[in-house]
Amino acid sequence: MREMRDVAVIGVGHTKFGLHTDKSLVDLFGEAALQAIHDAGVDRKKIEAIYIGQHGGGITDGTTNLGGFMAEELGLRGIPSLRFEGACASSTVAFREAYREIAGGWHDIMLVGGVERLLSAGTSVGTKSLASAVDGIYESNAGLTFPGVFALAARLYAAEYDIPLDELREKMAHVSVKNHKNGALNPLAQWYGKYGDLTIDKVVNSKMVASPLTLMDCCPMTDGATACVLAEGGIAEKLVDKPIYVLGAAEAGAGGIYRQKAEMIRPMTRIKSSKDAFEEAKLTPDDIDIVELHDCFTIAEIIASEAIGFFEFGEGADAVAEGKTKINGKLPINPSGGLIGKGHPVGATGTSQIYLVTKQLRGDMDPMPDELHVHGAEAGMTDTLGGDFSTLSNIILSVRRRGE
Amino acid sequence: MREMRDVAVIGVGHTKFGLHTDKSLVDLFGEAALQAIHDAGVDRKKIEAIYIGQHGGGITDGTTNLGGFMAEELGLRGIPSLRFEGACASSTVAFREAYREIAGGWHDIMLVGGVERLLSAGTSVGTKSLASAVDGIYESNAGLTFPGVFALAARLYAAEYDIPLDELREKMAHVSVKNHKNGALNPLAQWYGKYGDLTIDKVVNSKMVASPLTLMDCCPMTDGATACVLAEGGIAEKLVDKPIYVLGAAEAGAGGIYRQKAEMIRPMTRIKSSKDAFEEAKLTPDDIDIVELHDCFTIAEIIASEAIGFFEFGEGADAVAEGKTKINGKLPINPSGGLIGKGHPVGATGTSQIYLVTKQLRGDMDPMPDELHVHGAEAGMTDTLGGDFSTLSNIILSVRRRGE
Repeated sequence: MREMRDVAVIGVGHTKFGLHTDKSLVDLFGEAALQAIHDAGVDRKKIEAIYIGQHGGGITDGTTNLGGFMAEELGLRGIPSLRFEGACASSTVAFREAYREIAGGWHDIMLVGGVERLLSAGTSVGTKSLASAVDGIYESNAGLTFPGVFALAARLYAAEYDIPLDELREKMAHVSVKNHKNGALNPLAQWYGKYGDLTIDKVVNSKMVASPLTLMDCCPMTDGATACVLAEGGIAEKLVDKPIYVLGAAEAGAGGIYRQKAEMIRPMTRIKSSKDAFEEAKLTPDDIDIVELHDCFTIAEIIASEAIGFFEFGEGADAVAEGKTKINGKLPINPSGGLIGKGHPVGATGTSQIYLVTKQLRGDMDPMPDELHVHGAEAGMTDTLGGDFSTLSNIILSVRRRGE
Repeated sequence: MREMRDVAVIGVGHTKFGLHTDKSLVDLFGEAALQAIHDAGVDRKKIEAIYIGQHGGGITDGTTNLGGFMAEELGLRGIPSLRFEGACASSTVAFREAYREIAGGWHDIMLVGGVERLLSAGTSVGTKSLASAVDGIYESNAGLTFPGVFALAARLYAAEYDIPLDELREKMAHVSVKNHKNGALNPLAQWYGKYGDLTIDKVVNSKMVASPLTLMDCCPMTDGATACVLAEGGIAEKLVDKPIYVLGAAEAGAGGIYRQKAEMIRPMTRIKSSKDAFEEAKLTPDDIDIVELHDCFTIAEIIASEAIGFFEFGEGADAVAEGKTKINGKLPINPSGGLIGKGHPVGATGTSQIYLVTKQLRGDMDPMPDELHVHGAEAGMTDTLGGDFSTLSNIILSVRRRGE
């Protein structure tokens, strides 16, 4: 492969996650995008292309084909403006592609982001939208929605690693307690100011959703938008004091769980995608100081932390129970609150993670409090899962250029 | 911009367009993809990534997030597999991005394609799916669907160029007669063997859909899939006798008609996109020997032929009426039958055009008859429109490398 150019994140934007009944997908995206452009301090007209991650607009809003409308909203009519859809990973898939365009030499400055309206769509339409991301014939038609997918995964995890289910439920509850504690401190989060005092007992005894997962094992449905500005390395250095370099960006696709079966607790897409990202970045899991990963359910965080290689298979549940993934732990996972504490506006989640890791590596957490800051973090990673392990995207960011 | 590598189409695949009640989106795409891989004579395992254009699966099939499922279907689990959505231009948007990945140096061999199920979805669901591509607040909510969009365009065309509406209706009818005549000869077309004897009178007097557009001014709703294999220039030359080089690939986005208003008969997205494609290809409209362009309605073909620069503004209607765009005319437009004669399975339409231009430039029309061949054609162009002029994509293909 030929030599690629350096690429850096130079600006980030993030709406409040929660309920936005008064804003369309275009309105919400515009808000995050203008924040990112302002944060980068770049002339809006220098943006050469827009890459958007969006999942369920056709179902929730009767709206597809959003690229052109987003360009128009930002006063950038006529530039290439593309929509990417890979379910919950939509915007990191878009991010990877934008990074590759700049690295490959096609563009110098691009805007990437994502948006979703799920909470305002209501539970019925929201569930329909989410369920469209699993197999349309053998899974969703059979009644499988995501709580069911991850309930199966939790049971498989308990069986495979010989953990009594009640014991696993307690370990999973540690993910919820940790992420809600973080999310309660994050003013961008849907659960800001709430559930900061959650306990293991409260998680285990909350309403059962899909056994063994209770309501507090699940992330909420959310409206929101996020965005970032990417630039070629040399340009980035001229524009901002602290460019955050993209060292690796990978994606892998495969069938959903009816094809992956026993693999679902060791998802091959995540193993492949994270390995590819590390290889490209010339880093290993040990080099990562902070992670924002896809905790759509408590068990999902545990599975992800193992498949990426942060913990051995079967040891992720103990790691969280032992506090290793707290903000002051060995490897802080989801200091923002993750999807569970922060909310999960599907199309916006990937670039939300990019926003959060960028803020951490810059050391400028505003508007989040310093309590959420992982001091001294120099390399961070995002992990975004689309569907039942069928789309996986991993991005590695650093304060240093590749090889430095 | 740095020097880019050459990229060529080395294989193409195309299902029959029409009704496919018995096949899922994955089944249909798989059929076209395997054809393209076979046509390229490439080992399936050499395909490094899959880029798919798909529009309305969330609405028509309750299915999104198709990337991974497509990779699995082709026995290629774990490779990057992305879905792009830009309404009717979805698969040429995906094609442009794949071309850029190879040209930029990220990949050597990729599969691109598109798929849609509209006819089997039925008129109500199909119309809902299509209407989602216009503005979700100011247009579709106000009852605007695509026949309405292009009826407005036809009326604006008549007014702007001072053509009595009845006269314009006759001129538009020439597009329908020409494209149906071609489509009736194309075994891949939905209207194969039908409407070959259409007359101007029959078009003008068929059922009124949205005045002044009659049923025969409109393309049908269609199921189908198409695909192609792209490779880096040097690799392409080793694999096939006649690689068809991609000389230019452009995309432009802007708001829909409520933003473009009077521009709709001179759409800025198409003017920009085609200009960018010509610049990249270092060619002009005069260099193009054959065009497959977006005739979703008769007036749409006329507007497109002008905005790309093949005819002066206001002269496209005369050009078709004078026979200039027939297979033996000055510039053959839609020798395949176009969307009107061949059908319009939205996500598949862009790479259908790529398939058709590739076949023409290779001089190997099989399974289409030689009567549809534009003999001696060396450079061809595709034009795909998504929504009401909000997404535009143009690709230029040639038997020669850029600059040769």
